[in-house]
Amino acid sequence: MQAEIICVGDELLIGQTINTNAAWLGEQLNLKGIRVHRSLSIADSREEIIASLEQSLTRSQVIIMTGGLGPTKDDITKHTLCEFFETELVINEEALERIAGFFRERGLPLLEVNRQQAALPAACRVIQNFRGTACGMWFEKNGAVVISMPGVPYEMKSMMEEQVFPLIQAHFCTTEIVHRTILTIGAGESFLADQISQWEDSLSAHHIKLAYLPSPGMVKLRLSVYGKTDGIDEILEQKIQELRSLIGTYIYGVEKESLEEIVGELLRGKGMHLATAESCTGGNIAHLLTTISGSSDYFMGGLVAYHKDIKVSQLGISAEIIEQKGVVSREVAEAMALGCQRNFGVDFAISTTGVAGPLGGSEENPVGTVWMAVAGPNGVKSEKFRFGKNRGFNIDMASAAALNMLRKEILALNG
Amino acid sequence: MQAEIICVGDELLIGQTINTNAAWLGEQLNLKGIRVHRSLSIADSREEIIASLEQSLTRSQVIIMTGGLGPTKDDITKHTLCEFFETELVINEEALERIAGFFRERGLPLLEVNRQQAALPAACRVIQNFRGTACGMWFEKNGAVVISMPGVPYEMKSMMEEQVFPLIQAHFCTTEIVHRTILTIGAGESFLADQISQWEDSLSAHHIKLAYLPSPGMVKLRLSVYGKTDGIDEILEQKIQELRSLIGTYIYGVEKESLEEIVGELLRGKGMHLATAESCTGGNIAHLLTTISGSSDYFMGGLVAYHKDIKVSQLGISAEIIEQKGVVSREVAEAMALGCQRNFGVDFAISTTGVAGPLGGSEENPVGTVWMAVAGPNGVKSEKFRFGKNRGFNIDMASAAALNMLRKEILALNG
Repeated sequence: MQAEIICVGDELLIGQTINTNAAWLGEQLNLKGIRVHRSLSIADSREEIIASLEQSLTRSQVIIMTGGLGPTKDDITKHTLCEFFETELVINEEALERIAGFFRERGLPLLEVNRQQAALPAACRVIQNFRGTACGMWFEKNGAVVISMPGVPYEMKSMMEEQVFPLIQAHFCTTEIVHRTILTIGAGESFLADQISQWEDSLSAHHIKLAYLPSPGMVKLRLSVYGKTDGIDEILEQKIQELRSLIGTYIYGVEKESLEEIVGELLRGKGMHLATAESCTGGNIAHLLTTISGSSDYFMGGLVAYHKDIKVSQLGISAEIIEQKGVVSREVAEAMALGCQRNFGVDFAISTTGVAGPLGGSEENPVGTVWMAVAGPNGVKSEKFRFGKNRGFNIDMASAAALNMLRKEILALNG
Repeated sequence: MQAEIICVGDELLIGQTINTNAAWLGEQLNLKGIRVHRSLSIADSREEIIASLEQSLTRSQVIIMTGGLGPTKDDITKHTLCEFFETELVINEEALERIAGFFRERGLPLLEVNRQQAALPAACRVIQNFRGTACGMWFEKNGAVVISMPGVPYEMKSMMEEQVFPLIQAHFCTTEIVHRTILTIGAGESFLADQISQWEDSLSAHHIKLAYLPSPGMVKLRLSVYGKTDGIDEILEQKIQELRSLIGTYIYGVEKESLEEIVGELLRGKGMHLATAESCTGGNIAHLLTTISGSSDYFMGGLVAYHKDIKVSQLGISAEIIEQKGVVSREVAEAMALGCQRNFGVDFAISTTGVAGPLGGSEENPVGTVWMAVAGPNGVKSEKFRFGKNRGFNIDMASAAALNMLRKEILALNG
């Protein structure tokens, strides 16, 4: 069974709004075994809506639309659907009561434009909206369903989870899709592809598809099987084991975890605490760690020692070492980590010092050079990296590399 | 002239990647007077690519494709374009040299898969990629152009800005559009609309269009004039001056500047230095400040005092005050800013302490409550904010509000 997503709204086409609805819908449909093969954004235009629906109905069985259901003049999705399905608007009493209650509760008058939101196509099954005033609509035509919902993400998501998914599952017989995602760091896509080329060829015998999903410094490998067959879980496990023996040193986790979550769980499991001493990453590592709810259990805080005087005054690094070795050096990276470990009274401290760019490079330390260190219960380790020329990229890469270095050091405690 | 965007990649359809490329392309094309009327995401599938291209070419003059150009087996865009445009792959010497250099600089071997990235369709004009290994391609057919670029955002953006936009402007006769963007913070869209309603009415006499572009905590006001006429620059300047007299307290800048750039320029202009003491924002303010190249001129560094013990040990805040007033309080915010100003020896220090959520709220300080303070040459000022329930949103909002508070305090020095 194939699905398509049609998002209606000028704001999506001029880049005012990033389309997160399409990503969420794609993920949820996919997890339920419904393959999305197109996702389209179009303007608030009668012609575009009709042309898109006509095309989608030739290809797909599930067509999910969002947007264009507000009370203002530029919202024309409902009227266009009425025209397309050759039906007319009638007041839906349940919707009207809910909308009236919505305004009553807030002490606001019920305007005619709001009352008109309860006028819905006679030919549709109404999907009530318990979090807003724009109802959803479920149409059926030639064996396919067309579902239209508002574009407000939390209204749309609730309607999908509470009403639309159960309706779809009751209406169709869906194929389950099995996924496994293996997360790697520290090797490029082409290097990995080369290392696992033979293994990759072995997947087709089991109808397993492999996708490489790269992001700065990392590559996710996703295995997918359409249709759950007997023993497929075991085969996938075996394939992942084979993969570990080929590129195990680059694998940092499985499924949707981020590096900061994995490091956090490792620290939590050991009851250990972490602090950061950042120069070229400028606070980004602390920021990543604290995006995780509950990170205060293991993350004590950090120092952004951006200027060299701060490295001296706040981390106790000798000005002489900085003078002799340079700010971007093994010695300074190690002294930063050790000073941070001591000042913050933590088990682990990580440090970065480098040239984020685009200015400030030298022959010895061109833009993209970063020294980083991890101070832990067994002493301090350091490593030099060379990333690229783009400042944002270098900050992202250095942050990921530092967290990965920390991850390995925590794991090494077990050895 | 109409444009369409076709993004190729399974990861977009299963929601693993949110499509930010489409939003950026839509915004940039719109600014250059090219209307995007569809944006489509499709799978890494030969059939989907060909069917989409065929349809797009019946409607649009500019078709921009991203994605599917990696070196691995699932990336099939280049081969499919070869088939579609009935051409064959030939090694592009300039691309090969650049790719070889890319690997040589990094001390990595040039694998055959990488060498094959320099094999490009004979019928296309090659768009070199100066930030990665996948080249772009420019095809022409029946008066339309098809441009294919890699999906990595910063590679794609550089290629668009440096090569593709100039080529589009040379190829087509595009109407020049004059834009001015006024950046506001601290007031909602409807409040601003109410304040400037009369002024807004005055714009039509000069054929100036106004757009409200809201984002969390901020609203951009964009003035656009289609077709550059004599004296339009002066008229726009005058309109912006009028706007300043109406809502000047909310305007923090013009054009594409970010709050962190504006704060940086103000500090640089005064030869003053800044440090940060962050609790709930977890290093994000330092991170934002250091995304700006040259920020080391005014940003000394910061402390992420995430755990309350760190506030005591590293910022010298009395444990009694924390006990009596609570960590999320005016007193702690002010003590953090003052302690940071002293420790780092800076002119200005900003602090945040709050409940980012989703856990940790109380009746007095529900999730989203943030106290922040600015310590400057004239003493310390503090303010309480109440944002939302989402952790990431709260961190972003608090970071922007703190930078804005700092901006106002720097400006107040002149008074």
